[in-house]
Amino acid sequence: MDKEKIEPQTVKGMHDRMPEEMKRREKIISIIKEIFERYGFLPIETPAIEYWDVLSGKNRYGDEEKLIYRFKDRKGRDAGLRFDFTVPLSRVIAMHPEIPMPFKRYQIQPVWRGDAPQYGRFREFYQCDVDIVGAQSMLAEAEILSITYEVFRTLGFKEFNIKINNRKILQSLCEYSGISPELEFAVYRAMDKQERIGVDGVAEKLEFNGVPQDAREKLIDLLENCKTLKELERVIPEKEGIQELKNLFDYLKDFNINRKFFSFDPWLARGLNYYTGPIFEVVVSRPKIGSLAGGGRFDDLIGTFLEKSIPAVGITIGFERMMIALKELNLMPKDKPSTRILVAQFDESHSSPAIVIAKELRDSGIATEIYSDFVKLSKQFKYADKKKIPYVIVVGPDEVRVQKATIKNMRTGKQREVKMNKLTAWAGKIK
Amino acid sequence: MDKEKIEPQTVKGMHDRMPEEMKRREKIISIIKEIFERYGFLPIETPAIEYWDVLSGKNRYGDEEKLIYRFKDRKGRDAGLRFDFTVPLSRVIAMHPEIPMPFKRYQIQPVWRGDAPQYGRFREFYQCDVDIVGAQSMLAEAEILSITYEVFRTLGFKEFNIKINNRKILQSLCEYSGISPELEFAVYRAMDKQERIGVDGVAEKLEFNGVPQDAREKLIDLLENCKTLKELERVIPEKEGIQELKNLFDYLKDFNINRKFFSFDPWLARGLNYYTGPIFEVVVSRPKIGSLAGGGRFDDLIGTFLEKSIPAVGITIGFERMMIALKELNLMPKDKPSTRILVAQFDESHSSPAIVIAKELRDSGIATEIYSDFVKLSKQFKYADKKKIPYVIVVGPDEVRVQKATIKNMRTGKQREVKMNKLTAWAGKIK
Repeated sequence: MDKEKIEPQTVKGMHDRMPEEMKRREKIISIIKEIFERYGFLPIETPAIEYWDVLSGKNRYGDEEKLIYRFKDRKGRDAGLRFDFTVPLSRVIAMHPEIPMPFKRYQIQPVWRGDAPQYGRFREFYQCDVDIVGAQSMLAEAEILSITYEVFRTLGFKEFNIKINNRKILQSLCEYSGISPELEFAVYRAMDKQERIGVDGVAEKLEFNGVPQDAREKLIDLLENCKTLKELERVIPEKEGIQELKNLFDYLKDFNINRKFFSFDPWLARGLNYYTGPIFEVVVSRPKIGSLAGGGRFDDLIGTFLEKSIPAVGITIGFERMMIALKELNLMPKDKPSTRILVAQFDESHSSPAIVIAKELRDSGIATEIYSDFVKLSKQFKYADKKKIPYVIVVGPDEVRVQKATIKNMRTGKQREVKMNKLTAWAGKIK
Repeated sequence: MDKEKIEPQTVKGMHDRMPEEMKRREKIISIIKEIFERYGFLPIETPAIEYWDVLSGKNRYGDEEKLIYRFKDRKGRDAGLRFDFTVPLSRVIAMHPEIPMPFKRYQIQPVWRGDAPQYGRFREFYQCDVDIVGAQSMLAEAEILSITYEVFRTLGFKEFNIKINNRKILQSLCEYSGISPELEFAVYRAMDKQERIGVDGVAEKLEFNGVPQDAREKLIDLLENCKTLKELERVIPEKEGIQELKNLFDYLKDFNINRKFFSFDPWLARGLNYYTGPIFEVVVSRPKIGSLAGGGRFDDLIGTFLEKSIPAVGITIGFERMMIALKELNLMPKDKPSTRILVAQFDESHSSPAIVIAKELRDSGIATEIYSDFVKLSKQFKYADKKKIPYVIVVGPDEVRVQKATIKNMRTGKQREVKMNKLTAWAGKIK
């Protein structure tokens, strides 16, 4: 082999997850999974790669489509990496007519988007999706939001807001403002950026997209002045979308969700094209990281694969942003190192008792490491220290003679001797 | 939207994993993880995408390189999907000089290979890798094999064989047979196919690769007649590789591994180029599915990224094949449905008590589903039946009046009434 070195680097916007981070991630995922399953939702997984027409058909991702990692499958067929779970879920439903409806599933896997990396935005990131397929009632929305609420509360968030709106209301607002239907999605995408670019920024984007001045003034005026469903009801002739949200709010009360944690927000629009009814987003005031969760009803998406429509609603929890928020708000659960004991190697001729001791401890269920090489004991103690392993066991010739092991408590620095045949009993107590 | 439907299909060689399968997978993964952690190994994850030079540099995958899913990253830089965890691990080590050595990590994620799909071979599949980086002693090999042994025994395998060989021995065998060093990897790849194509098939492949007749006859003669390290020792002048395996076999005895579960196999070669020392593979006689695990020592791989070499050894458990074997051998753990109760919807005016009951049950830790739509009760019972949910609770006007809920036991078909305020107590008992 030649001597030229390969530069070791990760792909831009993607990250290795080292053991300490992994332990925190697994802890948070287990909390989220436990809640999903307590509500009767079950897991599925879908492949990382999807055919291009499945992924991007019917312009379902709108402008975002350009972020898909696209390439040729083995036989030259267009394909791309999973961009979300909503489209794969819809494909799954279309392929499995035997699934009992309503189908309640969750999915926790990575997705890939070739977005510009920035604070809280990555090119590979985990999402936690929870969806109900086959239910028309606002009960489904309410349950999805109840799960979301429980996740945020259980993780310790004191302040968050579930913003709620309805694409049906937005459609009426556009119509009432005199905006032509083909501009609808462009309007939603402009509105979706309001938190970042402000109302004036939205107005500029609307102008850029060809929305006439009177229409955009009327729309923004409505959005700014109809802060409640009641106010909205008085000025626009919309019925269905408003009634849906009224029902939803009633159900949320039944689910015992504290009123201060959700609100109607006429500005909420969401960027993707496939929503057809209520939409939601969870935001926190601190850290300034955008939304931590978002979703809505997509009654027409499954129908792009089938002869019939099947209603569906769900939410995505952005796992990476959730982790950042938990860290910044000091809500990350404390983890203790899982490995309790390091069995050191005195020298090559004493590896047998070391292996036997490690095996006994492991068999009794105690996470035990054995040092895998023959080096100075001082180096092995240093290793235990760096890895925060609380106890080191040493067995040398003196110990073998008296059938005892020397145990060093790495926190206090104190050493003691324990009989070989009492080691698991001792370890059971330090657990 | 136009009416043309998109064909719902998964990419060839890749599969959706539905809830029942997911539950089985999660169960087996949790058993494997528990063993890894009991040995003091900790998890890492690496990105799905790697730069092309990181993935394929130095011809490390040999012939297999053509199976990598290759495409351009966002800026047009060559990249590909993760093919194994050994190369990403080596990159991680090179990027993180602060990691205390020996580094003991495991990694459980999918990898992608554009191989011809067949029985037990997929294009997206999970692997479970466990490796020790920074240890030269055969203790490391012994620990890796002890973990592997424990995984197979814990999962219930009665018969399996850990085949062990050493690339150093194979190198001597080639040299002794008069095979030139540049043909070495081609020889290993031919040998690697012996179980499928037989000894004659290997001879043909050797001939095809330009190994002269006398050399290939001598090699095959040695492989067929030196079944033990002792026999081998008598005929070839190799010392180091044989001594390593002797040490390893002694350590395996200390680890209390039953001698009938491992054996020296001079035919074992492994296909990848990066092995430098002991190599291993776990095979079962039934089902006929190839190896369930494989690995070895790769002391030069990390050095392709660094100025210095760092020794390393590990094994890969092929998770999909493991699942197939467990199923065919009837070793799959029985799973009971996690959802215990369905709260039915009597009608729209009785959704409140249904929601309240579901919330109470969930709050007391019982996995409870609520029916998300308003349909006939018979349809809801059928749903519970299909999903194997053992109890259905109904609250209609009669029940509200007397503050009781009707509970149907779906297995016996019997119904009973329980006071609303005694429901969680009742549910605690059925748990």
